Amino acid sequence: MAYRIERDFLGERMVPSEAYYGIQTIRATENFPITGVPVHRELIVALAEVKKAAATANMEIGILRHAVGSAVVQAAEEAAQGKFADQFVVDAIQGGAGTSINMNMNEVLANRALELMGKQKGEYFYCSPNNHVNMSQSTNDTVPTAIRIAAYRLSMRLLETVRLLQEGLQEKADQFDRVIKMGRTHLQDAVPIRLGQEFGAYARVIGRDRERIQRAADALLTVNIGATAVGTGLNADPRYIVRAAELLAQQLQLPIKSAPDLVDATQNTDAYTTLSASLKIMSVNLSKMANDIRLMASGPRTGFGEIRLPARQPGSSIMPGKVNPVIPEVINQVAFQVIGNDLAISMAAEAGQFELNVMGPVIANNLLQSLTILHNGLDVFGRFALDEMEANEDVCREHVNKSFGILTALNPHLGYETASRLVKEALHSGRTIQAICLEQQLLTKDELDDILNPYEMTSPGISGAHHLQKG
Amino acid sequence: MAYRIERDFLGERMVPSEAYYGIQTIRATENFPITGVPVHRELIVALAEVKKAAATANMEIGILRHAVGSAVVQAAEEAAQGKFADQFVVDAIQGGAGTSINMNMNEVLANRALELMGKQKGEYFYCSPNNHVNMSQSTNDTVPTAIRIAAYRLSMRLLETVRLLQEGLQEKADQFDRVIKMGRTHLQDAVPIRLGQEFGAYARVIGRDRERIQRAADALLTVNIGATAVGTGLNADPRYIVRAAELLAQQLQLPIKSAPDLVDATQNTDAYTTLSASLKIMSVNLSKMANDIRLMASGPRTGFGEIRLPARQPGSSIMPGKVNPVIPEVINQVAFQVIGNDLAISMAAEAGQFELNVMGPVIANNLLQSLTILHNGLDVFGRFALDEMEANEDVCREHVNKSFGILTALNPHLGYETASRLVKEALHSGRTIQAICLEQQLLTKDELDDILNPYEMTSPGISGAHHLQKG
Amino acid sequence: MAYRIERDFLGERMVPSEAYYGIQTIRATENFPITGVPVHRELIVALAEVKKAAATANMEIGILRHAVGSAVVQAAEEAAQGKFADQFVVDAIQGGAGTSINMNMNEVLANRALELMGKQKGEYFYCSPNNHVNMSQSTNDTVPTAIRIAAYRLSMRLLETVRLLQEGLQEKADQFDRVIKMGRTHLQDAVPIRLGQEFGAYARVIGRDRERIQRAADALLTVNIGATAVGTGLNADPRYIVRAAELLAQQLQLPIKSAPDLVDATQNTDAYTTLSASLKIMSVNLSKMANDIRLMASGPRTGFGEIRLPARQPGSSIMPGKVNPVIPEVINQVAFQVIGNDLAISMAAEAGQFELNVMGPVIANNLLQSLTILHNGLDVFGRFALDEMEANEDVCREHVNKSFGILTALNPHLGYETASRLVKEALHSGRTIQAICLEQQLLTKDELDDILNPYEMTSPGISGAHHLQKG
Amino acid sequence: MAYRIERDFLGERMVPSEAYYGIQTIRATENFPITGVPVHRELIVALAEVKKAAATANMEIGILRHAVGSAVVQAAEEAAQGKFADQFVVDAIQGGAGTSINMNMNEVLANRALELMGKQKGEYFYCSPNNHVNMSQSTNDTVPTAIRIAAYRLSMRLLETVRLLQEGLQEKADQFDRVIKMGRTHLQDAVPIRLGQEFGAYARVIGRDRERIQRAADALLTVNIGATAVGTGLNADPRYIVRAAELLAQQLQLPIKSAPDLVDATQNTDAYTTLSASLKIMSVNLSKMANDIRLMASGPRTGFGEIRLPARQPGSSIMPGKVNPVIPEVINQVAFQVIGNDLAISMAAEAGQFELNVMGPVIANNLLQSLTILHNGLDVFGRFALDEMEANEDVCREHVNKSFGILTALNPHLGYETASRLVKEALHSGRTIQAICLEQQLLTKDELDDILNPYEMTSPGISGAHHLQKG
Repeated sequence: MAYRIERDFLGERMVPSEAYYGIQTIRATENFPITGVPVHRELIVALAEVKKAAATANMEIGILRHAVGSAVVQAAEEAAQGKFADQFVVDAIQGGAGTSINMNMNEVLANRALELMGKQKGEYFYCSPNNHVNMSQSTNDTVPTAIRIAAYRLSMRLLETVRLLQEGLQEKADQFDRVIKMGRTHLQDAVPIRLGQEFGAYARVIGRDRERIQRAADALLTVNIGATAVGTGLNADPRYIVRAAELLAQQLQLPIKSAPDLVDATQNTDAYTTLSASLKIMSVNLSKMANDIRLMASGPRTGFGEIRLPARQPGSSIMPGKVNPVIPEVINQVAFQVIGNDLAISMAAEAGQFELNVMGPVIANNLLQSLTILHNGLDVFGRFALDEMEANEDVCREHVNKSFGILTALNPHLGYETASRLVKEALHSGRTIQAICLEQQLLTKDELDDILNPYEMTSPGISGAHHLQKG
Repeated sequence: MAYRIERDFLGERMVPSEAYYGIQTIRATENFPITGVPVHRELIVALAEVKKAAATANMEIGILRHAVGSAVVQAAEEAAQGKFADQFVVDAIQGGAGTSINMNMNEVLANRALELMGKQKGEYFYCSPNNHVNMSQSTNDTVPTAIRIAAYRLSMRLLETVRLLQEGLQEKADQFDRVIKMGRTHLQDAVPIRLGQEFGAYARVIGRDRERIQRAADALLTVNIGATAVGTGLNADPRYIVRAAELLAQQLQLPIKSAPDLVDATQNTDAYTTLSASLKIMSVNLSKMANDIRLMASGPRTGFGEIRLPARQPGSSIMPGKVNPVIPEVINQVAFQVIGNDLAISMAAEAGQFELNVMGPVIANNLLQSLTILHNGLDVFGRFALDEMEANEDVCREHVNKSFGILTALNPHLGYETASRLVKEALHSGRTIQAICLEQQLLTKDELDDILNPYEMTSPGISGAHHLQKG
Repeated sequence: MAYRIERDFLGERMVPSEAYYGIQTIRATENFPITGVPVHRELIVALAEVKKAAATANMEIGILRHAVGSAVVQAAEEAAQGKFADQFVVDAIQGGAGTSINMNMNEVLANRALELMGKQKGEYFYCSPNNHVNMSQSTNDTVPTAIRIAAYRLSMRLLETVRLLQEGLQEKADQFDRVIKMGRTHLQDAVPIRLGQEFGAYARVIGRDRERIQRAADALLTVNIGATAVGTGLNADPRYIVRAAELLAQQLQLPIKSAPDLVDATQNTDAYTTLSASLKIMSVNLSKMANDIRLMASGPRTGFGEIRLPARQPGSSIMPGKVNPVIPEVINQVAFQVIGNDLAISMAAEAGQFELNVMGPVIANNLLQSLTILHNGLDVFGRFALDEMEANEDVCREHVNKSFGILTALNPHLGYETASRLVKEALHSGRTIQAICLEQQLLTKDELDDILNPYEMTSPGISGAHHLQKG
Repeated sequence: MAYRIERDFLGERMVPSEAYYGIQTIRATENFPITGVPVHRELIVALAEVKKAAATANMEIGILRHAVGSAVVQAAEEAAQGKFADQFVVDAIQGGAGTSINMNMNEVLANRALELMGKQKGEYFYCSPNNHVNMSQSTNDTVPTAIRIAAYRLSMRLLETVRLLQEGLQEKADQFDRVIKMGRTHLQDAVPIRLGQEFGAYARVIGRDRERIQRAADALLTVNIGATAVGTGLNADPRYIVRAAELLAQQLQLPIKSAPDLVDATQNTDAYTTLSASLKIMSVNLSKMANDIRLMASGPRTGFGEIRLPARQPGSSIMPGKVNPVIPEVINQVAFQVIGNDLAISMAAEAGQFELNVMGPVIANNLLQSLTILHNGLDVFGRFALDEMEANEDVCREHVNKSFGILTALNPHLGYETASRLVKEALHSGRTIQAICLEQQLLTKDELDDILNPYEMTSPGISGAHHLQKG
């Protein structure tokens, strides 16, 4: 293989002649063979967009020659389209706060620009990774800006999936609106509820999750480009600071704006921890919902059996005909992963010191993974579990009929103590409460029918206390 | 000791004659001798307020006789004022989703009401914990409503302290605005910054924390009173549902409102997880700030020595004259506790099933503790660490003078590679960069003075690239 | 109230004349009004024991006069017996790595010793908190030593409860050994299992938890007394270092030994994180078991209904006759708290710097709380849930009879595909597999009876493949 | 592309003719497009080894024909050598407790075996994924067994790296044994210590980490192969159960043994949580050490500057000559990831229900990743940070000389109060303590020289109290 020699202030390294990356990328791959997984693709794309905006701004204010700048811009556009995917080789977890991925990008763009300018790769005199591609920039502003953009875009993709989930749950809420079942508290029979009300409650909490994620994502659009090393904008022309953010907004068609305090925006990580927390909160809600669904689908013969999930794959390599709720199970697992990722992010955020949080790479990696797997998981959940989910109406109705929970409605009429005594008698004798009530002349049959209508019990204001008022 | 006998459907128990609580409270103390710490006082107060509103609503709609209802109301008012503090004896961590604290309250209020009505304690025929005090209610709506109110009020108290913290930090930002120091990234000398900028960044992130907590707290004012057991409002008159929330709002002078979907509001816990997450996020920020402050105060002779904290207590039982940053240290510890509490809350929230999260007590206990210790910690931080904190201006200035970080400003003039070489030469020779620049005729003395003015380097638009434009 | 004036190098403070504590305790209460909960009582006791051993050692090597030393020893003995419980007033969460609780103890013991010597409180010339009580010591060795001893003793108490739990579970395993039920995987009917096997599995994992906790606790007996400030033993006579640990072992009748490397033992916290991790792991196991039990006890009419828990308290303030699994629920909550505490401990441990982890107080508080609530929770679990737990044998048997899971045993005879087809036909037709097999002449009645015996299916080597061998 | 049609009891799917995998793998890829990352390679290898042992055992006991069995064995050997790496396409996070990866393996081996037998892919009549490859097995025993083996092997690899780390730290401890520096507690100057003592303390805690990980790994060698679906061994011949474990041990040359209670071993996850906890504990220790190292290396001009790390890469894209501690930073990040992973594992373990923990895939993925990144991170830490780390002896000595911490040694001679007063006077006057002592005739010059020898202060028994004895 052919090589070229590159140098930096620590020495020199051989770089494969064909490679667009350079010496610092090579050092980074030596230093960080950690996860074996490269930086998230969306972050590469976003960083390329940042580079394009920076180069354009530098040209506009007249500090970057057009010949060089336009080559860098074209290189960045190509990179943003995924052209040099195999050239971004640094590991997702890297020391140095992202300097390695920034330099990987700077080197790829410089060498591609050189190529476009008719020069050889490595002829950095004409277009240097540091002096030209990274002009007016620092890792500490470009990488955080790119992380925010990548996280924002993945958030938008996720939110669309969450919107569909909310709609899907609401459709089930409507579809199941007449399905009476036993409500359960403490896993013990409580009072009747409609299956539709349960799915309505899922839809509502997911609706609030959307708002939380949206709000957290919006904060990502305040970026620190122009902050350079510590937020003071050293080496960045004030006109550049303004223009870079404007151009980025324009390129991406997003209401990106420059942070009012670039020192704050460079060192604080609450934009990440807040987004991650919103994902964690949704994960808690999703896991609870998945647990409910798996419980309701438990069976087929010895479980709750209140709903049926579409069969997605044989559930066992040994038990014939077994089908498992594999899609809700994957939601649980995605939720646990996101909750674990949130802790990694929290610890990394807490470890920030002074002007910069150098743990940015592990934060970005966990955040972007959480956004990705939630999207993927909810997408399959909607299509493969929710859409064709069916209620076992017979089972649900039978549960209501055989339970004592409906007797709560007798409280306002007989008092809690008498009602409790009846339940105890019924449990021991095996007789129905109705029979005992009639025998003991506590209520007439009409009163009983009126009071113990399960459907009416599920809507506030329909049943219960109002009978007392009549009486 | 004299006793009375009380009964429930499981049997009977001897209750001390003097006790306002009754049989179910006794069962609860037997069942839950867990932490040794009772339910948070604010939760008791809030629950008493809920009971007052419920009794008033029940009277208004005519299902609770005035003689009984007004006695219950007075009892509740007394309880809310802390009168029966020693009667609320059930443990903070309890099974049963709060039924025990609800019944503890119901029993205390019933017996106090009986006393006010001229009856004996235990004569529940006249005023029963279940039938009268708990009328139209369930643990599953009254306790969550009370948790939300308690958490809201503690949030307001905390937010006032956080507001003072933000102001205190901003005051320091102003006071330290002219103190030039070395900015640090990776704990390595970076470029100059002003100490005031650092405190300004702390103030800003704390400002965003306030917004996050305020927003999360606002959501607590949507309550599920009237939901009864599972959110369907069974046994609660529709007029009661409306009035109970209105009366509660009126009593507490808070914009409390009834949840639009009581099933959702009864089973979902995102109001708690969101508030806890906002506290966790602030804790991450606070811990980072406390770490910075401890680092800047490190010394007195072998540390950074950039600030001085007021001496609060001898720092060692053995090392004479040693003074430690004990107040920032307690902030770190509070932060770690809050982050741990947030995990306990997350796990408890995830464990919700169907119509109710029965882990409410452990959620409430952690949430109310987090709100309390953050308030207490930040209160002492403000008064005992921040207010009298001083800058060691000489040390800060000396750091800037002896560092190479300011040479970053040479980049636009000499290029990154030349500047890097100069740093290396200076590091090895022990000479100043200025001397080397002059010797090698890279820049004139005037240019150097102009470019290397540290104060100018700290404000975007003042230094750096603009020189290039002139040149 | 009468006061005395005390002084330290920061100034003076009025101390109530009656108080045994002194100026540094007062400063600590001003500085740390955080949780409102004092330092764990076991830690106070252990610290008093450490002080006794230190004073004895100092007397033995001849650097502490007997008149003073014996008074300190007596004071320490009294404190260890709980005599001055109301004098230990510093908060559980305190800055300063425990200096405040150490000085609180030093002051109480000094003043009590003065009293015993016929002096006035505050006459520290005769017996000083620092020079005499704290002689040869530092907070950094006495407090960690005391934390370890306290944690060890609480671990022993916990382990006894865990042993009883394991025994109780094994008794249930024996009692339920003949109860055939459906095994479940994915909450879906799998193949038969015996209820006793399930409880046997719980017993086994709890047995391993005991080993883990025991092993972690054993490591606590390696203490750093004599390390003084940073582990170098500065100001501690080498004879003292040896004797202090020996005396402590003797006093407590425990195989306590001095750490081979006191620098290591002073700064590293793995003894705490390891114990906490062992508690976390047990909590995970307990929570899983509690979840299983709550599921098996779900009902009474619409749940799994495989076991019955003793009724411990009315389960609802509204639903008559409802009884909830409140004891398993409290186990879940204790587990979540311990898991949250473990995170607080992990973060605090990670925050250690150089020669000392100054976050010791929050570590100790969480660790001692976890040990306490696990003990308390498991004690009630054993007595109030496990001992009188009963199997619903009829329900369990019925579940087996109506499920298809037993048909897995047909695999070796008919092949997985044929068996799967039969399940599908049976599910759709509502007929039994047996009938279909006979009709399709796949197996004879004798073969079916032989293969499909559920009890035999639950023991490896009894059923299944061996039929094939015959055939 | 050419296809073949495959069927299962849910229907049929087109499978690329060339593919070794089959219909169930295709279903799995449709169902679980979650992380985009396949199952960890080590798990694939281990699963292939399990399949080989199972097929061999089945042949030995005579239930699997040799023609089929030996083809399966060869296929498994090839898979274990990595031959079909591109055929294992199911996602690392998958629902179904690992059924998908088990069936992916079964299908690949069946088709490869068919090929070896001269049959066409898909001719499952001759060798079926379920009936032949999976004979006597279930996902629920083969996958957990494979996870344990994979985790064990990665643990061994990690432990070798940890051993080298411990040795490296001990070498530094020896090398730096004479380097006197200031010990720090609370980031405040404490008393002298030797740099070698600090590295010795790191070496010791890492030594204990090795023991913890080794012990946790050993537990992995107890496997549940032969348990089949729920631990009862249904469909597995008792001779198979014994032989399968024996053969596996033989193949891998590891002391693998069958669990004494297969029900326990199938449902409980403490082997995983314990290993993960041991990794978390080491991560806490590593992060603390990395923090110390970064602090000691802070500078070059305004930090502690006590050690020098080898320069691994330019530290900034903007600041010339800046070099950052990128290797310790990556250790921090790896530590945070492992701690986050541990939480994901804990939550997944807690979610186990009844006879199986269906969250196995997310547990395995996090556990195997933690083992991998710790190995990788520590490997670079040893080679790129530790080996060539150097002490700045001059800086260390100067710190000791200018600090007051050494005056702690005066306590036994002058008393804590007098020593504290001297420190205060010295701090305010700028004079040395020695000068003040002489002036005030508190000690002679000889006494001062003797007492204040910093090196002697660092070894228990050399300095301090012994002077008093002479006096």
